Amino acid sequence: MTTIPYKTYLTEDEIPRRYYNFRADMPQQHAPFLHPGTLQPLQAQDLYPIFCEELCNIEMDTTTRYIDIPEAVLDYYRTFRPSPLIRAYHLEKALDTPAKIYYKFEGNNTSGSHKLNAAALMAYYAKAQGLKSLTTETGAGQWGTALAMACAYYGLDLTVYMVKVSFEQKPFRKAVIETYGGKIIASPSGTTEVGRKILAENPDTGGSLGCAISEAIEASMGDDNCRYALGSVLNQVLVAQSVIGLESKAAMEKLGEYPDIVIGCAGGGSNLGGLISAFLQDKLTGKANPRFIAVEPASCPSLTRGVYAYDFCDTGRITPLAKMYTLGSGFIPSPNHAGGLRYHGMAPSLSRLYHDGYMEAIAVEQNKAFNAAVTFAKHEQILPAPESAHAIYSAIEEALKCKESGEAKTILFGLSGTGYFDMNAYMAHLSGTMTDHAPSDEELRQGFATLPQVE
Amino acid sequence: MTTIPYKTYLTEDEIPRRYYNFRADMPQQHAPFLHPGTLQPLQAQDLYPIFCEELCNIEMDTTTRYIDIPEAVLDYYRTFRPSPLIRAYHLEKALDTPAKIYYKFEGNNTSGSHKLNAAALMAYYAKAQGLKSLTTETGAGQWGTALAMACAYYGLDLTVYMVKVSFEQKPFRKAVIETYGGKIIASPSGTTEVGRKILAENPDTGGSLGCAISEAIEASMGDDNCRYALGSVLNQVLVAQSVIGLESKAAMEKLGEYPDIVIGCAGGGSNLGGLISAFLQDKLTGKANPRFIAVEPASCPSLTRGVYAYDFCDTGRITPLAKMYTLGSGFIPSPNHAGGLRYHGMAPSLSRLYHDGYMEAIAVEQNKAFNAAVTFAKHEQILPAPESAHAIYSAIEEALKCKESGEAKTILFGLSGTGYFDMNAYMAHLSGTMTDHAPSDEELRQGFATLPQVE
Repeated sequence: MTTIPYKTYLTEDEIPRRYYNFRADMPQQHAPFLHPGTLQPLQAQDLYPIFCEELCNIEMDTTTRYIDIPEAVLDYYRTFRPSPLIRAYHLEKALDTPAKIYYKFEGNNTSGSHKLNAAALMAYYAKAQGLKSLTTETGAGQWGTALAMACAYYGLDLTVYMVKVSFEQKPFRKAVIETYGGKIIASPSGTTEVGRKILAENPDTGGSLGCAISEAIEASMGDDNCRYALGSVLNQVLVAQSVIGLESKAAMEKLGEYPDIVIGCAGGGSNLGGLISAFLQDKLTGKANPRFIAVEPASCPSLTRGVYAYDFCDTGRITPLAKMYTLGSGFIPSPNHAGGLRYHGMAPSLSRLYHDGYMEAIAVEQNKAFNAAVTFAKHEQILPAPESAHAIYSAIEEALKCKESGEAKTILFGLSGTGYFDMNAYMAHLSGTMTDHAPSDEELRQGFATLPQVE
Repeated sequence: MTTIPYKTYLTEDEIPRRYYNFRADMPQQHAPFLHPGTLQPLQAQDLYPIFCEELCNIEMDTTTRYIDIPEAVLDYYRTFRPSPLIRAYHLEKALDTPAKIYYKFEGNNTSGSHKLNAAALMAYYAKAQGLKSLTTETGAGQWGTALAMACAYYGLDLTVYMVKVSFEQKPFRKAVIETYGGKIIASPSGTTEVGRKILAENPDTGGSLGCAISEAIEASMGDDNCRYALGSVLNQVLVAQSVIGLESKAAMEKLGEYPDIVIGCAGGGSNLGGLISAFLQDKLTGKANPRFIAVEPASCPSLTRGVYAYDFCDTGRITPLAKMYTLGSGFIPSPNHAGGLRYHGMAPSLSRLYHDGYMEAIAVEQNKAFNAAVTFAKHEQILPAPESAHAIYSAIEEALKCKESGEAKTILFGLSGTGYFDMNAYMAHLSGTMTDHAPSDEELRQGFATLPQVE
């Protein structure tokens, strides 16, 4: 028997009762969101037609350090949280590393990922505001599933615009969303103006996250009892996801541990931003100095190869502009890219942190990520999501560096979800038909050419 | 905040260190296994060519009340156990029942079910005996996945004979098994004599569990470094699964609770037998008198419509004979039957308990089970396995009886697994194309006609 257990669960009473809004401790805020027509900075009220009011207020709030989690959301969290902090004893042994590896496992709920943390808050505020329905988009499907579950829980209707290529490749994701009562539409679709326009230009397109966002927003606009919900990128999402980091830190404190390195996969930034939150507070306030590593796919490398600039959050260019690391809203990852992490930009607040040197980033080819996933699955016995596999890759890399140097560093990474609905990708990897593709300089140039002229 | 939490986890130190072998407390044992050729009662040694020796010893052991869990198995259990005991507050509220509903959730591991409890023990004993490989069969896929995970963990090769109809309908189950290094063959196959014989007689057959068992056993027989492993029916399985009931009872004791009714789905009996184990001890020793309800599918009703007789455990008639409730080894459930629980017989020890009046049984049509599953998913936020849905149906029924009578009974049911790999069945149910089929008296007669003449 080891002194530190495999799994550390907080009690339900120890679930954080307040979110942590790390912007309150940031020395520099991200540049303001701009109105897509006037290019003027937005106020919270300007976003009320799009999102629930309370979420708009959180979106713009750079001063409230702690935000109370509504009681009804806490009650919902108790059905699937706290999530376990797991010591990767078996992986450590297989790697023969002196490093201590921990992971925060967010996949033990039916949505299969951390996305449910934010979905719970968004559905709650929609219900509290008296709305009848929400719209959203989904790519790989975790977010759509999570919001469908939360809407079923609070009694709201939901329409999900699912990126067409995923819609066709993942009928089972669709089935889960429908089991929870969600309505699902392949995007681009004929149900919106922006969808029809994109289809007219490119009838054979498999769609993109940016395009599905445009459609979901448009679909919500006509109905005063409906709003739109987004599962990543935004500050409101990162605030909700701070429960991951707060729980991680509390659990590590119980064990007398503190991470030297915190590693998260990075698409729009929801898991990464949530995971690092509580440790970021220590870093921003000088209490500790852990390294943060964002791991993105080589096929969609917004941090490592993007530019820091104002850009649209969607392909249809109907959203506000955000200053962020971006590949251009017209950038679409190579069709051979499996799994999520395919958004063209990165959360504005995380982009600012990266720009200011608080965070590192690496990009990983997908076959390397899947190799890490299979190793992890065999030793730790959990089949990871392709997204999470990126973080696993980096954690293994850092653990092997420790083996080299003899240092017993403490590594924490985010196991954001499970891969049970991603078996097509695993099959491609196992059969050797999965290919890697990093965009060429020319492909990047084409993406950057879609950036708006703002500055 | 409620006084009883949603989820009660034991600590890793509180994982049972001993299995409970309920046969030690049974007043009447099941009739002995018989040799398929001589019809003479078998000794443990007679089974050594089929199963690992330690498992054969457990199989025949009717006197050792508690059996130590090997340290290496405990260490493995710590990666996925203890499993949570969950109070179904949201379901109770939706049903408006005074009943208290608890469920023991065994699905939070990558195999998606309780099957991993027995797989861990079997793979461990194979390794300890110096074997190189195991063979097994799988129907719905949970057992094959579980054994593949355990074999990956202990470093053993595995060949899985998967019922052909499942093999074709569930490519993702196959992919998970292959990710863990398992080799998978659609059954009936040309790789065994019994498979070739069945194919010659019926080239278009979708296969059956009984047939896959025959193939897996035959495939293991030629190789002295290989044995066969079975995931249900046997005493060795029920002993391993006793961790479910032991943990359930320990968790309920912490909460000051005790079940009036314990409900489990019933195919071969592995989840049911495990779940009731610790409470059965109380019943057998007169300490308490909870009701036990076995819930089987109407399309494969071995307890409610079968006969109590000696039968083969497989279709190829190469296994020992067991006295059990059975529909005849030639019985094959209607092709419209989704999910597991499709074995023709019931665990001999559970059959004996049922015969002696310690247990009740009901049979449920699958659309009723799926209705219960969807209700449960929306309120409790976990998407159940079709197998588990049968137990949910009965738990809801009992809770509604409490609403009628005003009694605040305590109900415990087994949520044996998740339905993430069963979305075809959910889609059929949601779209209204799922049909119900209980065998006609004539179909039952055809199954009974395949029973051997023993008594």
